[in-house]
Amino acid sequence: MPGRSALSAAVSSTGSVRVANERAVYDVLCRGGGLSAPELGEVTGLSKPTVGLALAELEQLGLVEQAGRRRGSTGRAPRLYQLRPSAAGALAIDVGRSWVRGARVDLAGQVQQRAELRADGRSADALVDQVLRLAGDLGAADHHVSHTVLGSPGVYDRAADVIRLAPNLPGWETSSVLSRLRAGLPGDLVVENDINLAALAELDDLARLDDPVDTFVLVSVGTGLGMGIVSGGRLLRGARGAAGEISYLPADPSSAVTSTRLEELTGSASIVRAAREAGLDLPSAEAVFDAARHGSAPAQDVVAGEAERLSLALAAVVAVLDPPLIVLGGGVGRNGDLLLGPVRTDLGRRLPLAPPEIRISRLGTDAPLQGAVADGLARARHTAFAVATSA
Amino acid sequence: MPGRSALSAAVSSTGSVRVANERAVYDVLCRGGGLSAPELGEVTGLSKPTVGLALAELEQLGLVEQAGRRRGSTGRAPRLYQLRPSAAGALAIDVGRSWVRGARVDLAGQVQQRAELRADGRSADALVDQVLRLAGDLGAADHHVSHTVLGSPGVYDRAADVIRLAPNLPGWETSSVLSRLRAGLPGDLVVENDINLAALAELDDLARLDDPVDTFVLVSVGTGLGMGIVSGGRLLRGARGAAGEISYLPADPSSAVTSTRLEELTGSASIVRAAREAGLDLPSAEAVFDAARHGSAPAQDVVAGEAERLSLALAAVVAVLDPPLIVLGGGVGRNGDLLLGPVRTDLGRRLPLAPPEIRISRLGTDAPLQGAVADGLARARHTAFAVATSA
Repeated sequence: MPGRSALSAAVSSTGSVRVANERAVYDVLCRGGGLSAPELGEVTGLSKPTVGLALAELEQLGLVEQAGRRRGSTGRAPRLYQLRPSAAGALAIDVGRSWVRGARVDLAGQVQQRAELRADGRSADALVDQVLRLAGDLGAADHHVSHTVLGSPGVYDRAADVIRLAPNLPGWETSSVLSRLRAGLPGDLVVENDINLAALAELDDLARLDDPVDTFVLVSVGTGLGMGIVSGGRLLRGARGAAGEISYLPADPSSAVTSTRLEELTGSASIVRAAREAGLDLPSAEAVFDAARHGSAPAQDVVAGEAERLSLALAAVVAVLDPPLIVLGGGVGRNGDLLLGPVRTDLGRRLPLAPPEIRISRLGTDAPLQGAVADGLARARHTAFAVATSA
Repeated sequence: MPGRSALSAAVSSTGSVRVANERAVYDVLCRGGGLSAPELGEVTGLSKPTVGLALAELEQLGLVEQAGRRRGSTGRAPRLYQLRPSAAGALAIDVGRSWVRGARVDLAGQVQQRAELRADGRSADALVDQVLRLAGDLGAADHHVSHTVLGSPGVYDRAADVIRLAPNLPGWETSSVLSRLRAGLPGDLVVENDINLAALAELDDLARLDDPVDTFVLVSVGTGLGMGIVSGGRLLRGARGAAGEISYLPADPSSAVTSTRLEELTGSASIVRAAREAGLDLPSAEAVFDAARHGSAPAQDVVAGEAERLSLALAAVVAVLDPPLIVLGGGVGRNGDLLLGPVRTDLGRRLPLAPPEIRISRLGTDAPLQGAVADGLARARHTAFAVATSA
C-alpha cells in the first residue's frame, strides 16, 4: 500500500524515465566517446535493451553517432558510440591586456580551431573589433555554436549589463562593449571573470590527480592580481561576482583610501619597476626571475619584496577562507618557483596555523581560455540535450 | 521497455519507499507539531492511506505521538500529531570567557531547561568542571540525550582532538579538556566554533524574514573578533575549521609577524583601554558606546577608531568573499548602531564597489547557544529516525 503512489508515479512517467535513461547514456558519452553498448550498460547500470533504445533515440535526435568498431577484440567487434561533433559547439574567448585568445569546441569536446591576436588596447572599440574578427576566424558562422563564453578581467554586473573593475582595459567598462559583442558573437553570450575561468581549468587539472582536489583557491599574479575560489567543485562568485577581487585588499591599512591597490604592488609591472629602481634594466617580470635564478643579488631582493607582498594577500585569504590548497598561477605566479620558499616562510610567521599547501599551477597562460572552453562545452551539451529531447 | 528497470526497482524497494514516506511525514513534523493527517497529506503530497500508515508506524517506533484534537473545527475534530518529545534530545553548551551557558532540547524542539554560570577562567580544569556541573543541572542523566554540541572559541583540530586558537581561555587547548568532556557529557560530542554556531542561529533568524537570506557572513565583535560564513544555507568551515578566523588578519602589513593581532585592536578590552587613554574610566565597551551616544567627545573618538579598524577587517572580507550581507553580532557588534554609519563610509572609501548591506544582529548574547541547540536538535532528530527505522 505505501508503495502504490511511488509505483503509479513510475508508470505514469515512462516518458521521463526514458529521457532520464537517455540522459544517463549521454552523460557517460560526455566524459569520453568511443564506447560500446555493453560498456555504457556497465557504467550506467542500465539493462542492455534500455541502453540500446537510448542509443537509437539519441542517434535519431542527432546527438550521438557511431564511431566505428573496436579492433582487436575476440568475436564480433562491438560498435562504438560517441557524441556527434557537429550537433552543437561553443566558442571560447579570453580578452586580456596583452592577448585576445579564442577557441571553438565541438560537442564531442574536441577543440577544432584556436587563434590568438596581440591585443589592441588603444580603445575598447578596437578590442571588440578584434574579438569579432577572431570569432570569424574560428568559423563561428559555419558551425552550430550555442554559446560564447567570454573571459574578461573584472566583474560582470548583470543588472547593468556592463563589465566593472577592469581598469587595465581602457574603455572596457562602457555599455556598448557588451551590446556590440552580444550582437556579433554566436549563441548566448556568457561573461565570466578570467581568473574564475582559469580556476575552472585548474579544477579539471586537479581532478586528474591520484588524489583529486575540488576545494582550493587559484591566486593569479600577472598583469593583475586576482583569485578564483572553488569550493566542493563549484565556483564561489560572491554576491556581485566580485569574490576573489583581492587586488582591492587593503595594502596600507593606515591609509583609509584605496589610493594604493595591492595589485599595483604585486603585478608584473611593479616587479619590472622595482628591478629598474635597483639598477636592473630588464624587459619583463620573467626576466627579473631569471636574473634572480642566475644569482643577481638585486633581482633576488626584488623577488623577496614580491614574496612579502604576496604573502600579505595570502595571509588575508587564509584568515578568511582557510583553503586546503593555494595554487599560484598567472605569468608571475607560474614563474614563482623562487617565490614559494619565502612565501611559505613569511606566511608561517603571519599565521597561527601552519600555512596550507601551496603549488605552482601546471597550466599555461591560456588557462582562462581552457576554462572558457570547458564552461562553454558544458553549457552547449546541456542545451543540446534539452532542446533535442523537448522538441 | 525502457521504464521496466525503473518499475521493478520501485517494486523491489517497497520497504525503502515505506521508510521514505515515513521520513517525509517525520520531516514535516520536525518543522512544527500539532498537524492532522490531512494536513500532513497536503504538505507531503502523499495519499491518505500512505500518511495513515506512516503515522501508525512512526507511533509504534516511538517517534510520534498524538497531541489531542483540533478544537473549533466543524464536524469530527481531527487528531493532531507531533514528535514525541522524550524520544530523544540534545544538550547544547557554549563556553565563553565570561559565561558558560547550557540548554537541553527535546525531540519536539522545545528547550526544556536552560542554565548559565559565570565562567571560572582560572584554569581549564575549573572550566571543564563547570561544564560537567551544568550538564548535570540540565538533567542530562535523566533524559535520552543523543548529542552534546559544545560551542567554543577557536578551532577544533579533529586529527589531534584538541581545540586550537583559543588564547582567551587559558589551558583550553590541552588535550585532557576534550577527553574529560567526552567522558562526562552525554551522547556524541560535537565541537564547533562558537561564532559558527551563532551564524547558524542567525541563519534561522534570517529565514524568518519576508525575504529570506541564506548567504551572509556574521562578524562578531566582543571579547574577540570572529566570523562565520554561510553560503547557500551551509557553514563554510575551511580546511581546518579556521575559515573566518579574521582576528588573524594582518593588522599592520608593514610588520611581517603576527605580533599585533587585529583582535587586540578591535575587541571590547581595547575599547575600554582606548577610552581610559582618552581619560574615560568606564567599565565596559557598552558603557563607552553609551557615553558616545550621550555626546561624550572622547568616547565618540574611541568609537570612530573602532569603526576604522573594523572596516579594515570588513574590507578584507568583502575583497575575498563579496558577501551580499554582513551581520554584526557579539557584545560590541550588537551595540554597534554607532558603528554602522562610519563603517559604511569607511568601507565605501576602501572598496571599488558599493559596500554590501550591513545589519546589526537581532539575536542576544546567547546566539552561539541558540545555534548549538539548533545543530544538536537536527543531529538528534536525524539519528533518532535512522536508529528507529533500521532496528
